[in-house]
Amino acid sequence: MNRPLPSCELCTAAGGEILWQDGLCRVIQVVEPGYPAFCRVVWNAHVAEMTDLDASERRHLMRLVFATEAALRRHYRPAKINLASLGNVVPHLHWHVIARFAGDRHFPRPIWAEALRQEDAVIPDVTTETLRQAIIEALAEEDGGT
Amino acid sequence: MNRPLPSCELCTAAGGEILWQDGLCRVIQVVEPGYPAFCRVVWNAHVAEMTDLDASERRHLMRLVFATEAALRRHYRPAKINLASLGNVVPHLHWHVIARFAGDRHFPRPIWAEALRQEDAVIPDVTTETLRQAIIEALAEEDGGT
Repeated sequence: MNRPLPSCELCTAAGGEILWQDGLCRVIQVVEPGYPAFCRVVWNAHVAEMTDLDASERRHLMRLVFATEAALRRHYRPAKINLASLGNVVPHLHWHVIARFAGDRHFPRPIWAEALRQEDAVIPDVTTETLRQAIIEALAEEDGGT
Repeated sequence: MNRPLPSCELCTAAGGEILWQDGLCRVIQVVEPGYPAFCRVVWNAHVAEMTDLDASERRHLMRLVFATEAALRRHYRPAKINLASLGNVVPHLHWHVIARFAGDRHFPRPIWAEALRQEDAVIPDVTTETLRQAIIEALAEEDGGT
């Protein structure tokens, strides 16, 4: 495994409240104004790209990304899920998993574009504990489903 | 399989020059000023979300996304790869696979943010045929590597 990088914010801190983790990766809840249904799935070791992982590591990480998507869909019923692995500023492999709503600040634009409105959409209030449980259940369903 | 939707631009047209395809999905080359190393991987059937696919379909699609990433990395040697499945405007499952360069119009911002510069980075000239071949080779390596 690559060594933690003292200058990397995803090597030195969790990056948010941890919803689920194993020895390889973690799901964290992101604090982003206007976007309460926003998680990140972070690979624990400091690697930059999906193709820096081997195929089984990639499947392990994507399984968690899709379980997080399923958990957000189940409890938020969003208009759309946005998935992105960018990392131009923090080149430590992490996925944004964002539930989007028709009235959110940027919809239908990506959240990185200029905002279209300042007021926030009405977004369901889902507890951290509910999300935690939903990720566990989605992972179990995925294991049963294939 | 879901029926093609007459109003959906990814149901009614390829969306760009096809680099690779099978019965389920295709890789197309995107024409985007300033971003010559930009592909999309499109699921052929009209579904919106990754979790609308079953687990084996998801793996099939992601294998092609990562082969496309590997092909772009091999020939363009970018600063970073950006992967994104958004679809807020065209809710037909497709992945953006974008090679990013330190001097490109938005770097290190996402390409959907406001541009930081108008001039273009010096980006290697790679032929369509070279990319086609690189995707085939990356798929073959993935099959051999796991």
